[in-house]
Amino acid sequence: MLIVKVLKPLVSTNRIPGLEHRHLQVVLDGSSKKVAVDAVGAKPGDWVIVVGSSAAREAAGSKSYPSDLTIVGIIDHWDPDAPKPPSSVPASPEAPKPSPAPKSGELS
Amino acid sequence: MLIVKVLKPLVSTNRIPGLEHRHLQVVLDGSSKKVAVDAVGAKPGDWVIVVGSSAAREAAGSKSYPSDLTIVGIIDHWDPDAPKPPSSVPASPEAPKPSPAPKSGELS
Amino acid sequence: MLIVKVLKPLVSTNRIPGLEHRHLQVVLDGSSKKVAVDAVGAKPGDWVIVVGSSAAREAAGSKSYPSDLTIVGIIDHWDPDAPKPPSSVPASPEAPKPSPAPKSGELS
Amino acid sequence: MLIVKVLKPLVSTNRIPGLEHRHLQVVLDGSSKKVAVDAVGAKPGDWVIVVGSSAAREAAGSKSYPSDLTIVGIIDHWDPDAPKPPSSVPASPEAPKPSPAPKSGELS
Amino acid sequence: MLIVKVLKPLVSTNRIPGLEHRHLQVVLDGSSKKVAVDAVGAKPGDWVIVVGSSAAREAAGSKSYPSDLTIVGIIDHWDPDAPKPPSSVPASPEAPKPSPAPKSGELS
Repeated sequence: MLIVKVLKPLVSTNRIPGLEHRHLQVVLDGSSKKVAVDAVGAKPGDWVIVVGSSAAREAAGSKSYPSDLTIVGIIDHWDPDAPKPPSSVPASPEAPKPSPAPKSGELS
Repeated sequence: MLIVKVLKPLVSTNRIPGLEHRHLQVVLDGSSKKVAVDAVGAKPGDWVIVVGSSAAREAAGSKSYPSDLTIVGIIDHWDPDAPKPPSSVPASPEAPKPSPAPKSGELS
Repeated sequence: MLIVKVLKPLVSTNRIPGLEHRHLQVVLDGSSKKVAVDAVGAKPGDWVIVVGSSAAREAAGSKSYPSDLTIVGIIDHWDPDAPKPPSSVPASPEAPKPSPAPKSGELS
Repeated sequence: MLIVKVLKPLVSTNRIPGLEHRHLQVVLDGSSKKVAVDAVGAKPGDWVIVVGSSAAREAAGSKSYPSDLTIVGIIDHWDPDAPKPPSSVPASPEAPKPSPAPKSGELS
Repeated sequence: MLIVKVLKPLVSTNRIPGLEHRHLQVVLDGSSKKVAVDAVGAKPGDWVIVVGSSAAREAAGSKSYPSDLTIVGIIDHWDPDAPKPPSSVPASPEAPKPSPAPKSGELS
């Protein structure tokens, strides 16, 4: 799955019937825009998890739904600029998370 | 799904029987050209949504149709140069869309 | 689907039984080489359409054929250097094709 | 499959029901972050094998599980900076592994 | 399919049960390392064909095998530095192969 940011809804009046009952969202994956089927009710600014491949169909509600990218969860807290753990950090079962200084307030 | 621009139809006389009953369109994905099966009747210049992966088969009309990229919707309004929302924009359920000055008249 | 150029056949004597009854072709996708199952009888120098994802299996003749890239059509005329239509071209139902000056004679 | 490094667990309270019974891990694939379903109990700092495509569903425990990236194994020893074998190394059935000097102690 | 070079076997003791009965190989795809299930008995230094997508499962022996990359054939002769045919080469049914001077002896 990928971590992307929701930008805005996408309006497409002329579409295939199979797409009818779901909202589409423009999402930002790094610097490129993609379109995802929204299965959780995300809103612009949310950081979300999207699933692709054949799993996107099932995630959108049905095996025959024609999606290749579906929003499956809203991330509680996400700082895209969080520093990566240094490579000398010992592996530990406690999953130590770095505690970066709060930077952007948009998701707090 | 991806947002791509339709360039022109593609003619391939010598093809496998399974491709017979659909139009193929050359589309521009960023700067690279791809070929998509057209399920909505798009025309050159249209900005469209294409679906890939296994969902492209279903979207083309049948689970056994050999497509890995299918045009599933024509976008009503799309400005590829629209500025991204600043990261300080508060998340809101109203999905505030930036209103860029009209730039290219091709889709208005 | 992608538009690629056929380079040459690929010989692999030690292969899994499932690949037995099809020709393999080395194709050029941009600047990277890939291997595609040939379902149309392409020859070196041809510009062809290849289908990937799960559709490649069906396109190769059977749902259980282990292909992830299959040649499904030979393009009648293809100029890889064709200029892109300017962004000010009006969308029209007549699908106006740019008529570039003939440049490379290899496919004419 | 890809070789990636586990960074930390990902918390997503608002998610689709289908994701409920598995842990999600943020993993580092080269320099980009992805999210994988954890099927082996990996911990931060582990180098793991992730499987994508439709196989990620089965690997997560069920054909209908909506995963496109699943952790399927923890690598016993992995040195991401191991030198590549020189191209003049003769192919041999003994699978000669280069024995790089121990560099980072994190996985020893 | 892709053409990759086998580097060395990969050892993962803690893995999901579904991976049990196959060898894993680290392969080099261009400059990035990936892991493939070995269905042909390849050895380090071999140039091989790997199949991805959903076809990798079938190629590994069973539709439910969780592979997204499977080695399906060993290439008889491969010179990664072979010059590409010039674009002025006429398409011919005889599949003229360039005969590059032998450069690296590793696969001869």
